[in-house]
Amino acid sequence: MSSIPLPFAIAEYAERLEKVRASMDREGVEVLIVTDPSNMSWLTGYDGWSFYVHQAVIIMPEGEPLWFGRPMDAVGARMTTYLSTDSILSYPDHYVQSFVAHPYQLLSAILRDRGVSTARVGVEMDNYYFSAKCLEVLRAELPDITVVDATSLVNWQRAVKSEQELIYMRRAARIVETMHERIREISEDGLRKSHLVAEIYDAALRGADGFGGDYAAIVPLTPSGTDAAAAHLTWDDRPMRRGEGTFFEIAGCYRRYHCPVSRTLYLGDPPTAMLKAQDAVLEGLEAGLEAAVPGNTCGQVAEAFFAVLRKHGIEKDSRTGYPVGISYPPDWGERTMSLRPGDQSIIEANMTFHFMPAIWTDEWGFETSETIVISEDGPAICLADVSRELLIKP
Amino acid sequence: MSSIPLPFAIAEYAERLEKVRASMDREGVEVLIVTDPSNMSWLTGYDGWSFYVHQAVIIMPEGEPLWFGRPMDAVGARMTTYLSTDSILSYPDHYVQSFVAHPYQLLSAILRDRGVSTARVGVEMDNYYFSAKCLEVLRAELPDITVVDATSLVNWQRAVKSEQELIYMRRAARIVETMHERIREISEDGLRKSHLVAEIYDAALRGADGFGGDYAAIVPLTPSGTDAAAAHLTWDDRPMRRGEGTFFEIAGCYRRYHCPVSRTLYLGDPPTAMLKAQDAVLEGLEAGLEAAVPGNTCGQVAEAFFAVLRKHGIEKDSRTGYPVGISYPPDWGERTMSLRPGDQSIIEANMTFHFMPAIWTDEWGFETSETIVISEDGPAICLADVSRELLIKP
Repeated sequence: MSSIPLPFAIAEYAERLEKVRASMDREGVEVLIVTDPSNMSWLTGYDGWSFYVHQAVIIMPEGEPLWFGRPMDAVGARMTTYLSTDSILSYPDHYVQSFVAHPYQLLSAILRDRGVSTARVGVEMDNYYFSAKCLEVLRAELPDITVVDATSLVNWQRAVKSEQELIYMRRAARIVETMHERIREISEDGLRKSHLVAEIYDAALRGADGFGGDYAAIVPLTPSGTDAAAAHLTWDDRPMRRGEGTFFEIAGCYRRYHCPVSRTLYLGDPPTAMLKAQDAVLEGLEAGLEAAVPGNTCGQVAEAFFAVLRKHGIEKDSRTGYPVGISYPPDWGERTMSLRPGDQSIIEANMTFHFMPAIWTDEWGFETSETIVISEDGPAICLADVSRELLIKP
Repeated sequence: MSSIPLPFAIAEYAERLEKVRASMDREGVEVLIVTDPSNMSWLTGYDGWSFYVHQAVIIMPEGEPLWFGRPMDAVGARMTTYLSTDSILSYPDHYVQSFVAHPYQLLSAILRDRGVSTARVGVEMDNYYFSAKCLEVLRAELPDITVVDATSLVNWQRAVKSEQELIYMRRAARIVETMHERIREISEDGLRKSHLVAEIYDAALRGADGFGGDYAAIVPLTPSGTDAAAAHLTWDDRPMRRGEGTFFEIAGCYRRYHCPVSRTLYLGDPPTAMLKAQDAVLEGLEAGLEAAVPGNTCGQVAEAFFAVLRKHGIEKDSRTGYPVGISYPPDWGERTMSLRPGDQSIIEANMTFHFMPAIWTDEWGFETSETIVISEDGPAICLADVSRELLIKP
């Protein structure tokens, strides 16, 4: 129907489906309702900003996945997925944001029509787009099913990246390099934040090496001065000022694959405490990269990093990284493993993480992060090449 | 603590809280857990890209609202809200995206500590950020509460805009005007979509009249040719081509307030059917504006529009608009009323809607929409001034 090329070969989608079904078997899940747009896309290729209405990919015990959504988005599903038209199902438009009819009534009817009435049905219980109401409607319509919490079942299968996925992430890495280059060029006392972010988007979207950029799942976070003590503020019209640091938590994105890389910039003479924090963070980062090898746990990576911080007298308790890859708003993380003490997840080759050493004090924030890919042997490789040092401009 | 100015006067937040409490009384809700970031911001001023982790504003029977979230975001809450430090509560960082601990365990403990154990507790059952798991944890931790579906309770209070809200929406209108101006200037055969979108973002963020833009809750939707038959595709690297139409569903955004305005552009000679659809849509739009007066229902506005389409031989069944104002991703709509036949919601002065006449055929899409504000008397006013005609370039 469409000229839109699939981002991956059909064989790769088949492999992914097989991995998911194997995990369903292990977890005793017979039917899986997938609502996370990243998971929907990873399984079928589906791409569109339609996750503000109810939609799902349903994995039945056999056959290709079913896509379920709004009629106008079913058109997009026919264009962007490998699914046959018969597998693309929709609910009437008056079910959209209605108070009297809910799309999960029809989703339940679809399951019932296909003989699912007593199965063990997996749902993404703690995900943005599977609301409490979805669960209530499903239980009311199909009272004899057993609902199984399959929150991250698909997410876990995404952890190890294929060669094609790594190609997209490397393109995203080239893009984030140009974004930081632009920041270095234009940052100056008096530059309004809204204009700064316009330049960051310009670099992100024009892309690199002839590959244009996609929208990242998180907008640029660029707080300055004491605002940078808060982790997730966005921007406004106030200008950059001499005597203030600004951290840039940004990602290049190519075909929904992300390469986040954070850096910090200071206009003027940075406080000694920030420079000391930098020494600790840069040394800790190297220690973390050394520890990020197949067979180690995520907890060991975090411990390697935190041990260096402690040596420098810095205590930090928030997690210091998470897996990344394909994603849709509001998060570019995969929401499975965490680089934090005690996380027992075993690291494997070709996993990709946003290793995110950041220090926030009451006075300022300092971030320098890398997106890393786990090697077969040796320390993890950083996908992007951006100087890690605090960038100091007069 | 911070230099970040509140977007509204304290008195306006007090009025909003009063309206919400009055609605809670009517619905028999004693405690309200608000998870929609737009509602959280509207009630307290809270602003930050932190909605990818669990957070909430809790309205107790009396006193100021409580903010609940991650420690690093509590810093942002102290900076961006009017709340006292005592009202800003957080959960330890190891609760973030954990499989063994859930933030709603602590939220429940907070309620219990404040004497809430048998109350009627309202939750936003069908909202993006109140997951099924939140509901399950809440019920397990507080088994004697009665959970009330309060999905759009706060959203409804947002429908009629204050003068300050309208000021922000007019600034957003100026911004979307410059975005369309940029589109008119640069669109041409061969222009890569990623570069086109870079220009749209540049105009959106540099803003207008000295006011820089904020990120809109939906990214620019700019499909061309047959892709435009699908409603919600984003962009890629393919170029604009002569002989193709492109619709632009975009919004200006200022301090989280949106003014969406869609237009369509054609390179070359547009198909006769598209021009005929335009005649119908433009006439229908005027009919809708005439019907959008205080006292009429949303259904009557939709009927006025659809009646004109039918006269022109066009059948359409999707809704043709919704209220807009403050918003966070993934949707800039308020998710209360819909401009569709049968919607009995009564229109009032100073309500704002995205009136969204769009025609999608199998071959192309045509959109021309307006953000409107309801007058005291007379037809609704369009906030932005952008020529509604199909823009034809050679």
